[in-house]
Amino acid sequence: DYADLDLDRAARRGYPEAVFCAGKTPAQVAGIAATIRARPDVTTLFTRAEPAHAAAVLAELPDARHDADAALLAWPPTPPPPAGGLVVVIAAGTSDLPVAREAELTARYLGRPTELVVDAGVAGLHRILRRLGLLRRARAVVVAAGMDGALPSVVAGLIPAPVIALPTSVGYGAAFGGLAPLLSMVNACAPGVAVVNIDNGYGAGHLAAQIAAD
Amino acid sequence: DYADLDLDRAARRGYPEAVFCAGKTPAQVAGIAATIRARPDVTTLFTRAEPAHAAAVLAELPDARHDADAALLAWPPTPPPPAGGLVVVIAAGTSDLPVAREAELTARYLGRPTELVVDAGVAGLHRILRRLGLLRRARAVVVAAGMDGALPSVVAGLIPAPVIALPTSVGYGAAFGGLAPLLSMVNACAPGVAVVNIDNGYGAGHLAAQIAAD
Amino acid sequence: DYADLDLDRAARRGYPEAVFCAGKTPAQVAGIAATIRARPDVTTLFTRAEPAHAAAVLAELPDARHDADAALLAWPPTPPPPAGGLVVVIAAGTSDLPVAREAELTARYLGRPTELVVDAGVAGLHRILRRLGLLRRARAVVVAAGMDGALPSVVAGLIPAPVIALPTSVGYGAAFGGLAPLLSMVNACAPGVAVVNIDNGYGAGHLAAQIAAD
Amino acid sequence: DYADLDLDRAARRGYPEAVFCAGKTPAQVAGIAATIRARPDVTTLFTRAEPAHAAAVLAELPDARHDADAALLAWPPTPPPPAGGLVVVIAAGTSDLPVAREAELTARYLGRPTELVVDAGVAGLHRILRRLGLLRRARAVVVAAGMDGALPSVVAGLIPAPVIALPTSVGYGAAFGGLAPLLSMVNACAPGVAVVNIDNGYGAGHLAAQIAAD
Amino acid sequence: DYADLDLDRAARRGYPEAVFCAGKTPAQVAGIAATIRARPDVTTLFTRAEPAHAAAVLAELPDARHDADAALLAWPPTPPPPAGGLVVVIAAGTSDLPVAREAELTARYLGRPTELVVDAGVAGLHRILRRLGLLRRARAVVVAAGMDGALPSVVAGLIPAPVIALPTSVGYGAAFGGLAPLLSMVNACAPGVAVVNIDNGYGAGHLAAQIAAD
Amino acid sequence: DYADLDLDRAARRGYPEAVFCAGKTPAQVAGIAATIRARPDVTTLFTRAEPAHAAAVLAELPDARHDADAALLAWPPTPPPPAGGLVVVIAAGTSDLPVAREAELTARYLGRPTELVVDAGVAGLHRILRRLGLLRRARAVVVAAGMDGALPSVVAGLIPAPVIALPTSVGYGAAFGGLAPLLSMVNACAPGVAVVNIDNGYGAGHLAAQIAAD
Amino acid sequence: DYADLDLDRAARRGYPEAVFCAGKTPAQVAGIAATIRARPDVTTLFTRAEPAHAAAVLAELPDARHDADAALLAWPPTPPPPAGGLVVVIAAGTSDLPVAREAELTARYLGRPTELVVDAGVAGLHRILRRLGLLRRARAVVVAAGMDGALPSVVAGLIPAPVIALPTSVGYGAAFGGLAPLLSMVNACAPGVAVVNIDNGYGAGHLAAQIAAD
Amino acid sequence: DYADLDLDRAARRGYPEAVFCAGKTPAQVAGIAATIRARPDVTTLFTRAEPAHAAAVLAELPDARHDADAALLAWPPTPPPPAGGLVVVIAAGTSDLPVAREAELTARYLGRPTELVVDAGVAGLHRILRRLGLLRRARAVVVAAGMDGALPSVVAGLIPAPVIALPTSVGYGAAFGGLAPLLSMVNACAPGVAVVNIDNGYGAGHLAAQIAAD
Ligand SMILES: Nc1ncnc2c1ncn2[C@@H]1O[C@H](COP(=O)(O)O)[C@@H](O)[C@H]1O
Ligand SMILES: Nc1ncnc2c1ncn2[C@@H]1O[C@H](COP(=O)(O)O)[C@@H](O)[C@H]1O
Ligand SMILES: Nc1ncnc2c1ncn2[C@@H]1O[C@H](COP(=O)(O)O)[C@@H](O)[C@H]1O
Ligand SMILES: Nc1ncnc2c1ncn2[C@@H]1O[C@H](COP(=O)(O)O)[C@@H](O)[C@H]1O
Ligand SMILES: [Mg+2]
Ligand SMILES: [Mg+2]
Ligand SMILES: [Mg+2]
Ligand SMILES: [Mg+2]
Ligand SMILES: [Mg+2]
Ligand SMILES: [Mg+2]
Ligand SMILES: [Mg+2]
Ligand SMILES: [Mg+2]
Repeated sequence: DYADLDLDRAARRGYPEAVFCAGKTPAQVAGIAATIRARPDVTTLFTRAEPAHAAAVLAELPDARHDADAALLAWPPTPPPPAGGLVVVIAAGTSDLPVAREAELTARYLGRPTELVVDAGVAGLHRILRRLGLLRRARAVVVAAGMDGALPSVVAGLIPAPVIALPTSVGYGAAFGGLAPLLSMVNACAPGVAVVNIDNGYGAGHLAAQIAAD
Repeated sequence: DYADLDLDRAARRGYPEAVFCAGKTPAQVAGIAATIRARPDVTTLFTRAEPAHAAAVLAELPDARHDADAALLAWPPTPPPPAGGLVVVIAAGTSDLPVAREAELTARYLGRPTELVVDAGVAGLHRILRRLGLLRRARAVVVAAGMDGALPSVVAGLIPAPVIALPTSVGYGAAFGGLAPLLSMVNACAPGVAVVNIDNGYGAGHLAAQIAAD
Repeated sequence: DYADLDLDRAARRGYPEAVFCAGKTPAQVAGIAATIRARPDVTTLFTRAEPAHAAAVLAELPDARHDADAALLAWPPTPPPPAGGLVVVIAAGTSDLPVAREAELTARYLGRPTELVVDAGVAGLHRILRRLGLLRRARAVVVAAGMDGALPSVVAGLIPAPVIALPTSVGYGAAFGGLAPLLSMVNACAPGVAVVNIDNGYGAGHLAAQIAAD
Repeated sequence: DYADLDLDRAARRGYPEAVFCAGKTPAQVAGIAATIRARPDVTTLFTRAEPAHAAAVLAELPDARHDADAALLAWPPTPPPPAGGLVVVIAAGTSDLPVAREAELTARYLGRPTELVVDAGVAGLHRILRRLGLLRRARAVVVAAGMDGALPSVVAGLIPAPVIALPTSVGYGAAFGGLAPLLSMVNACAPGVAVVNIDNGYGAGHLAAQIAAD
Repeated sequence: DYADLDLDRAARRGYPEAVFCAGKTPAQVAGIAATIRARPDVTTLFTRAEPAHAAAVLAELPDARHDADAALLAWPPTPPPPAGGLVVVIAAGTSDLPVAREAELTARYLGRPTELVVDAGVAGLHRILRRLGLLRRARAVVVAAGMDGALPSVVAGLIPAPVIALPTSVGYGAAFGGLAPLLSMVNACAPGVAVVNIDNGYGAGHLAAQIAAD
Repeated sequence: DYADLDLDRAARRGYPEAVFCAGKTPAQVAGIAATIRARPDVTTLFTRAEPAHAAAVLAELPDARHDADAALLAWPPTPPPPAGGLVVVIAAGTSDLPVAREAELTARYLGRPTELVVDAGVAGLHRILRRLGLLRRARAVVVAAGMDGALPSVVAGLIPAPVIALPTSVGYGAAFGGLAPLLSMVNACAPGVAVVNIDNGYGAGHLAAQIAAD
Repeated sequence: DYADLDLDRAARRGYPEAVFCAGKTPAQVAGIAATIRARPDVTTLFTRAEPAHAAAVLAELPDARHDADAALLAWPPTPPPPAGGLVVVIAAGTSDLPVAREAELTARYLGRPTELVVDAGVAGLHRILRRLGLLRRARAVVVAAGMDGALPSVVAGLIPAPVIALPTSVGYGAAFGGLAPLLSMVNACAPGVAVVNIDNGYGAGHLAAQIAAD
Repeated sequence: DYADLDLDRAARRGYPEAVFCAGKTPAQVAGIAATIRARPDVTTLFTRAEPAHAAAVLAELPDARHDADAALLAWPPTPPPPAGGLVVVIAAGTSDLPVAREAELTARYLGRPTELVVDAGVAGLHRILRRLGLLRRARAVVVAAGMDGALPSVVAGLIPAPVIALPTSVGYGAAFGGLAPLLSMVNACAPGVAVVNIDNGYGAGHLAAQIAAD
């Protein structure tokens, strides 16, 4: 009486529903995990899982994979064999890593091959230019950045693949919890930039998986 | 001395540079058009062209195609033969049509087959449900909507393809020039929604073309 | 000397004053509870009661009903016999449940028959369409939703009754504590949507009770 | 190919669709008006009609009623016989009159008896207190106010009926186009206040008609 | 080397400097208190004093008056004999009391006679109307209110004295920490309303003391 | 039927109602002017009068005083004999002059002696310091400033009288139509600063007149 | 009586006062120009001069230099001989040219050698990298950019000189009149970025001249 | 695999990279510190270091200098011998001291002579005027201020050197975490004001060091 799982989503959309743990009690999350045990055919992700949520899931699904950095759990624990185009995820700074990791794991559990690049912000441009070969092989690139959010524009100007701009709440002051990079990315002067919500690694990874589907 | 066209962009990215007319004088736009005459191998779009801009372009490139509703010109006038997946563009209301048209023409001039659906907002849900067949065939769907910006979430929940949410400045009061639908779309509760700038039909069409490239 | 209860409100308006506990000390709330003991003819609600507030009320009014999820207490504990039209309350997601519950309890303690529907967001449209029969019987429908706040527009487009849109702070990033669904709901493209404050379950329930009064 | 009128809305919801003229060309509005001629069983409103829109409607439906102050047209021109409860509309200041008039006409064309009160802002409280008798007879009260938006709270504290708070863009400076009264109304300290969009007289009147339906 | 007290302010302006404790370490506040001991001719207020600040002050000035609700200390502890016009301070709701108290104490320590009225918000208008006699005797009235911030407009419309509108952070959701009442008060439709910062009881009391100086 | 003049305001508050012309038709303003002709005992101001409003007033009250810079009319044309304390009005820059003039005329028509100081912004501090003698004689000082809004803090730090900070929309870019100086003034680091709405010369002058009443 | 020119500023600061024409009448600007005729020892700039302002200045100072694109006039017309370090001004796009030109002319009239680079935005990175030699020779670099405002971060990461980030109102939608690039620049992830107001070419050029002074 | 230090930055720009600790785990910071041990030729700053970060750095670099107030560590611990022009840092109030200290230490570790002035806000103007001699000797002045952010305009109007305006989050209510002083500073009515992010002492000190380089 507190959840109505959209289990038919995988059939309808090709991608299963994920469980958004924030705002749910551990008991509710446990209840959902118990339901899911009967559906090993569908890969279920639990996102934004705090330790108490993770413990609740693991009590019901002990072999679930838990990535504490990304606050994510997956069950069954093994991702599908990689298929489709390559998804590259870039973290502009080290502090963007947890969100970037959430994006990468989501894309991988939705079935794509993935690569992760860390600490390649525009203040030292040589670091991203050094990766041009990898970036040109990607079918979709996720760029996680806080502060000025300038990296997606730069990357989009260099490659044919769509760039998924993932603003993060990294920064302070007039970053306003990610508003600054969000606005910057929405106004990217290079076309080919698709924006998702601040810190929404799950959404970025999902979109990348859809774009790189074939 | 006022422009440094990125003519190598088509080679580098696979998609040519477009000329953003807003803020340029007609004389500057005419100068750019004159330069472009030497490059019929690249399809050039002139976006946000007011009548004076359009006249300036047509004086240099008399056979350019001009779509006044979408404030767009294209030269050479014939789009490439359609290739890649289908791009469907939806205008939630009649007032969203100019922006939706800009998106459709952009995708078509970048080489994709396109379809346009008009006046299918969530206030009368049967209108979008009636098009489910078409939507399911798409490789990318652009949804232009103002006011509450609710349609992209609904569409994304029904299909496997990524949805490009295109907020418009249609509305008044607390729509704040498109801020309301922009925020709504960034917070879409269905994953698979990629957001672009308010009224950015060009960017939405470009992204759709990239996603549907193969 | 810290409160001047508007006990005549029930006579003047037909609905009694509620005690807003946030920002009051437990001692102040206890003092108000003690005053109220003399007025069992009026149903008094204590809203946004944290545990210390609840304990203070229960010390004075031991038989008060306390719903911890909704952070609400009611005294006398039994609601009036249901009269007037049906109030349906919908929680778009599981995380919207506490606010939705506050709305439902308020409407019930103000004398209306109520029904609660949980986890019926637009990402899986079949879940709300399945309830159309119930929704059509309602005299007023409260829809609690965070993130994109898209559900009220969809529901309002389907039924004759007014929809009370109740934005919640569920979400993160550019949800900006409920600003995104608030703006979305204020701009609902379907007419018949009445908006209240973010997380204001009490106000939504009160309004529903007034609308469904006869 | 530019509109898909929701003519079934009257059957589904009990209230017909209105045509939002802003952002439509006069030719498009004329086309819609021509379609509507075949449906005299449904009362159609054209809202936010500038003179060119009005001329276009009147060319197709010469006997349509045109209220230029409210920027509204109605066809067929005679409202239904008044039924249901009384709707009272208040304009806090003279400058709020056009929006208040749009609300009143909408409620009347949707079938309710209506009354209009003008220039009764809180700076001279005796003006609203003098109307208490009328206000207490209402089944729904619309209060249009700009600047501080304080009047709905005051009215709601005095009567049993729901108050529909209609913020207007009247004011300047930190009124921010109606944002100040909108926020004020959403935070009304009296319960029983339902907020609609800034300057949305149509929506306020529609909601009032629904509330006062029986 | 961390403070340069403006001890000449009393001479220059007629009112002494107060010490703003927020953001200072208790050690810094203690140091300032020690300096002040040499100046009993000037009344010094310590505002926004958390318990650690208060302890630091009391260690240096053991007879200082500490009002924990208002987070204020005064030394010397006895206010000057009341002179000038009457300052009335109103707290719209019980939760506005701490801020209202800060205003009242400030005015009193700057030498004015004061009166405090609590819980007289616009939702029950009779409560403020009952105090009209007192309000009409005031030379300045401070009105502390959160949420819709409607009370200052109402009070200003009834009396000849200036009203100092003191927005508070009481409320939630779209009150945005006091932004809603601040905007409401700045847009007061009754002239004669002077606005100060959110929760700035000190500033409101200071201004009231200056206005009521003679 | 479009206005309900609060003619009793002068009796109740000591200051007459002003007519806010913005948003009123010239015909409505003319109608109000005609009513006022019967009340030469009350000084009526017409504020924010565009040329058409002014013409309408002058047609009914040919001897009204019209100050086009301040967009203000007064009738009867002669201000009352100056009484009470001195009101000094400062325009930080030349561009702030119209708003400052509205404030000065309002205070003068409400019966106070006034002085005007122009172009004395903080970028050249000697200009304001040169006027210290005059400022120290004032019972109330109005400071109109746009851009950084820094002048009120500086003035308040120098004198015993209250400062009425009047933010103007002078500036561009991140001045955001006066938001920057409004926020700056609300956060004035010198106490004794009372803020009114952006460009609200009328309100500032009214408040100054009240403060300097005795 | 409408201006108090700060003619001593050149002596005090080393840089003369400029006349901000926006919001001044042409007659006022003419009056200031007439005063200035007596001071050919000081270079005076008139900024934000619309055609009527320019005509007024030229009537008094016929040999003044007028740059209509930059909306700037200078008198005496010849800039001082260039001294100090090199100031490089970059316009990210063609539409940023007027603001960039205002910056360049200001720096030149304050005595610095200047260079201008146009159309070198991050979407085609090779265009800025090609100028690295010039940029490395600069003592200060002004970067004018709208939309995402990403260019200053990139430039600052490549050179030792300070970068003055000059956000422009070029763009639309969520650029919000230059707010997006302003926030982006304030959050620049490369240190060494100094931000000025949106479209404030004058301020950027002034700052550059001060930095490059020796 | 979590960091790619830009160690070549000192060569490229003349100033080394600093390590932004916020959002990094202590283990990551320790790893970076270990890498740095091999590069004593470069001065590395660790900014925004919480106690756990500081402990991690000190474990790897025991002789690093730790300034807890400024949340900063430097290694090697001795700053370079002072060279270039004088950098003066002003803290408007005592509460601005930590941020001002971060700016001063940064400028010193980048090689400049520095001076610090504390508690010199505009409410007591004599305090800043008393330091004019020192300010006039500076090659760059950093002004840290919260609340109204008025001090940079005042200082810039008095001296030839550029002013780096450093808004702080000191304040409450409508200071909105530093937004008010940020906007105030961006709109400084005196030219020569360069703005950095809220609380960005590091960036302000870096910029000052660059400006005062020769
Ligand atoms: N981290 C996340 N951010 C945004 N949406 C999410 C996230 N995780 C799951 N979702 C979506 O939220 C919905 C589930 O919400 P709920 O019913 O509350 O569990 C699904 O449609 C998911 O696709
Ligand atoms: N003034 C108005 N404000 C807001 N919504 C309106 C207004 N007038 C009509 N509508 C709604 O807008 C929709 C029509 O949009 P469209 O299809 O673009 O004509 C209908 O669902 C109406 O209920
Ligand atoms: N320029 C002004 N700005 C703000 N309020 C004003 C102004 N002029 C008049 N008012 C107030 O507006 C009210 C008149 O509004 P109205 O009834 O629309 O004419 C009166 O209460 C005046 O005190
Ligand atoms: N375009 C501009 N933007 C910002 N400030 C300016 C501009 N032009 C001049 N100023 C400054 O504005 C002041 C002149 O204002 P005013 O006295 O109104 O002419 C001077 O201190 C100038 O330094
Ligand atoms: Mg790094
Ligand atoms: Mg339609
Ligand atoms: Mg769910
Ligand atoms: Mg009136
Ligand atoms: Mg109360
Ligand atoms: Mg001036
Ligand atoms: Mg270009
Ligand atoms: Mg101090």
